[in-house]
Amino acid sequence: MNEPEPPSEFDKLFKGCQENPEDFNAWVYLLQFVEQEHFNPGLNTCANFSLQVYRRGLQVIPLSVDLWLHYMTFIKENSDPNDPETEGRIRAAYEHAVLAAGTDFRSDRLWESYINWEIELTKLSNVTAIYDRLLGIPTQLYSQHFQKFKEHVRNNHPKHFLSEEEFVQLRVELSKASLSSMVGEDGDSAVPPEELPPGTDDLPDPAKRVTEIENMRHKVIEVRQEIFNHNEHEVSKRWAFEEAIKRPYFHVKALEKTQLQNWKEYLDFEIENGTPERAVVLFERCLIACALYEEFWIKYAKYLESYSTDGVRHIYKKACTVHLPRKPTIHLLWAAFEEQQGQEDEARGILKSLEEIVPGLAMVRLRRVNLERRHGCTEEAETLLAEALQMAKTPNEASFYAVKLSRYFLKVGKSLDKAKKTLHEAIERDPTCPKLYLNLLDLEYNGDVTQNQAEILACFDKAIKSPMPLESQLLFAQRKVEFLEDFGTDVNVLVASSDEHIKLKEESDSLKRKAESAENGYDG
Amino acid sequence: MNEPEPPSEFDKLFKGCQENPEDFNAWVYLLQFVEQEHFNPGLNTCANFSLQVYRRGLQVIPLSVDLWLHYMTFIKENSDPNDPETEGRIRAAYEHAVLAAGTDFRSDRLWESYINWEIELTKLSNVTAIYDRLLGIPTQLYSQHFQKFKEHVRNNHPKHFLSEEEFVQLRVELSKASLSSMVGEDGDSAVPPEELPPGTDDLPDPAKRVTEIENMRHKVIEVRQEIFNHNEHEVSKRWAFEEAIKRPYFHVKALEKTQLQNWKEYLDFEIENGTPERAVVLFERCLIACALYEEFWIKYAKYLESYSTDGVRHIYKKACTVHLPRKPTIHLLWAAFEEQQGQEDEARGILKSLEEIVPGLAMVRLRRVNLERRHGCTEEAETLLAEALQMAKTPNEASFYAVKLSRYFLKVGKSLDKAKKTLHEAIERDPTCPKLYLNLLDLEYNGDVTQNQAEILACFDKAIKSPMPLESQLLFAQRKVEFLEDFGTDVNVLVASSDEHIKLKEESDSLKRKAESAENGYDG
Repeated sequence: MNEPEPPSEFDKLFKGCQENPEDFNAWVYLLQFVEQEHFNPGLNTCANFSLQVYRRGLQVIPLSVDLWLHYMTFIKENSDPNDPETEGRIRAAYEHAVLAAGTDFRSDRLWESYINWEIELTKLSNVTAIYDRLLGIPTQLYSQHFQKFKEHVRNNHPKHFLSEEEFVQLRVELSKASLSSMVGEDGDSAVPPEELPPGTDDLPDPAKRVTEIENMRHKVIEVRQEIFNHNEHEVSKRWAFEEAIKRPYFHVKALEKTQLQNWKEYLDFEIENGTPERAVVLFERCLIACALYEEFWIKYAKYLESYSTDGVRHIYKKACTVHLPRKPTIHLLWAAFEEQQGQEDEARGILKSLEEIVPGLAMVRLRRVNLERRHGCTEEAETLLAEALQMAKTPNEASFYAVKLSRYFLKVGKSLDKAKKTLHEAIERDPTCPKLYLNLLDLEYNGDVTQNQAEILACFDKAIKSPMPLESQLLFAQRKVEFLEDFGTDVNVLVASSDEHIKLKEESDSLKRKAESAENGYDG
Repeated sequence: MNEPEPPSEFDKLFKGCQENPEDFNAWVYLLQFVEQEHFNPGLNTCANFSLQVYRRGLQVIPLSVDLWLHYMTFIKENSDPNDPETEGRIRAAYEHAVLAAGTDFRSDRLWESYINWEIELTKLSNVTAIYDRLLGIPTQLYSQHFQKFKEHVRNNHPKHFLSEEEFVQLRVELSKASLSSMVGEDGDSAVPPEELPPGTDDLPDPAKRVTEIENMRHKVIEVRQEIFNHNEHEVSKRWAFEEAIKRPYFHVKALEKTQLQNWKEYLDFEIENGTPERAVVLFERCLIACALYEEFWIKYAKYLESYSTDGVRHIYKKACTVHLPRKPTIHLLWAAFEEQQGQEDEARGILKSLEEIVPGLAMVRLRRVNLERRHGCTEEAETLLAEALQMAKTPNEASFYAVKLSRYFLKVGKSLDKAKKTLHEAIERDPTCPKLYLNLLDLEYNGDVTQNQAEILACFDKAIKSPMPLESQLLFAQRKVEFLEDFGTDVNVLVASSDEHIKLKEESDSLKRKAESAENGYDG
């Protein structure tokens, strides 16, 4: 049989899922199309194809209760009821579903569907087993589940809703308890035990039979009541967090600050109080709503660090390649992580491709420089810095890299001359940047201030006479006075520089006054 | 004859003048007391005593027109009209007065008094000579003087209001002019000159006599008209400044900003456009109203620098010892001035006594330190710094001196160890001061950053774990990340420090949020 040629509508929908693999609706549309419109559900090939689409979708969106329910309906509809393996396959699919999504606070409908299916099959002990798991999980409808469980116990015979082993065990327990209550308070008197009821046979005495059934129901509920109480407490701790989640789905529009804060606090709570499983499920839920917020991806990756290196790598990769291809911080963390794992080449690649997508980010370039430096490639590091300086788009950016390069020459290259030269050239290019002069002064100060006095004063004078704003000139004039006071040799130079400072101060004050009176003029 | 015992009331008034020698009223009260209440004006001794008081007062307040007028009245009343030297003595006193105060824009009453006295004596040519000086000086009543001068010319005979030489010279000039007008336009024809009028004798022809007198009056006024015009222009340039002076006298209450600004601009104007004499007079006037503002004393001293070292010294001394004994800046300038003159001991004394009056001023202590350093007394300099550190009243002050002492050890004493020790001890005392850590980091950075990495990180960690405010800790955490990025050898350490930084940042953000919501709580 030939596979039908996928029509172009399919291509479109499929492309939508590929581009936004976490868009739930895209998957639903694709599946609707595949199942109903153009493929004959009777055809095995088509069912298999749909199954692949479902599985791919569930892999990407494992927390979608809706998708799981669609999937279960699909599986049931496409199974041969006469096949003896069908029941087992469906149960396995339900197990897969609750393992993936059943810890979610809002997974109630999935559990209910599983339970109802087992009820339909009258596999009542399976129902009890599912409740035993569900009653211990904090979910939204926790209380409703317990009510239904109690009905399930009251409406059915223990022999049916308990497994054989449990039934026998409970019967033995109850019989022992009844015996010891008969012993009374004088513990010693050894009354010979009544013969224990054999296996799962009903007791012969009808009155005793009814009593035993009621006692068993009571015991079964009593045990779950304790679990329920504990779970209710767990639910109550999460209720406010859950209530506060206003938009659990993905949307490009920014989330409100309080929403983000709620997620953050909820995650901290589960990390602190929940199981790793719950924490991970909450991270996964959070990263649907907050997929565009790198802080949550980072938090997730950091959380996974103590559990799984591959897990961390997976999260970084997913965040950086799928959701946040332009966010630098998480890329830097990813690169650092790979460098920590000894994967320098991986780290190099991550940084380089980020720089290609978002050029001109200083923190990325510096990380590249320092990655090379840390691994002994000092020439490459220098080249990367020099290149950044050369390619700088603004004088400010160029000055930033000039300072970095100068420090690199001084501290790594051990060349004071190159360091100075770099700064002098930078000042030529951007004479209005105070940082350049400050760094040059630092270089000169580091030496003997008496020997370097001429250079230091020349640098001060260059700054004071530069075209930088008066306020900055003033700052240099003041520092010059301080330098001459603390380390100068000639009081005449000190006095002259103090006069220069006063003069600049007066100029500045007069400008301020003029600006003030101009302002008042506009106001009046 | 015994000198009368000065009564206690006198003592009180005299003390007032001594304490506030520039308080005009104090001198007036003292003089009133001396002249009228208890001393017999007939007594020569008393007159002499009063004279001494006047002279002392005028020396201190040479610009007070009122005091000069009081003084002139006193002199006139106490002179013997029959003494042939009296007139000359009074004239000398007037000359003294107009030399001292006559350039003042508001000196009109003094000039008027002088003129009226000469008129009373009918010394009309003296009157003309006084007007010839007055008409060139920009004063408030410049126009009125010219009117009066013209009346003086019209109501009197040239022979009387001109000196004999002037009269003769003018007569010759007029006669020459009349001759040349008679020659007409054909210049050559040599008409023999009429005989020149002999000396000061009247012309025999009555008509010619009247014409000559009118011509002379016309000529005399014409020449002064030009001077008047020029002076009017000068007055107009000063008028707005003078109008803006709302409080020419001394008062402890602060002057308005606009008043100070007006003085400043007026002084700048006279320095730029006036004679040094006018500038000095304006400085003296200004320093009556602005005696408590060190900027004007400083301006005056700086102005005098190109004229007279003694003048500068006098101004500094007057400002610092009389008016501003507690103002540091002008004392520092005075000390620097004396140091510039080679008078280090003088400079030392100035700084030391200021420190005794106003202890704890860092700028003064640092100047003392550096005065010693400049003159090779490095031990004394170190002692002064160490003493300041020890005597510091606040942790902040101690840290300030610790930084200075550390730099002194490093740069002057050439001891890195002492420099570090100083900072380490300071951090022990004040672990919350960011500057101390920054300076310690500077010391370590100056060396080989790879070799010093352990010390540098230890310093960062000490700062981050110190009890300083979270915001400051955060800054150090950030700088630590930068240091490790730029110069660290291990990416694991970088990542750990980056995590530490993020954690602190979150703490800080959360505190900010709490503060904000608390604020909103109060607002709402």
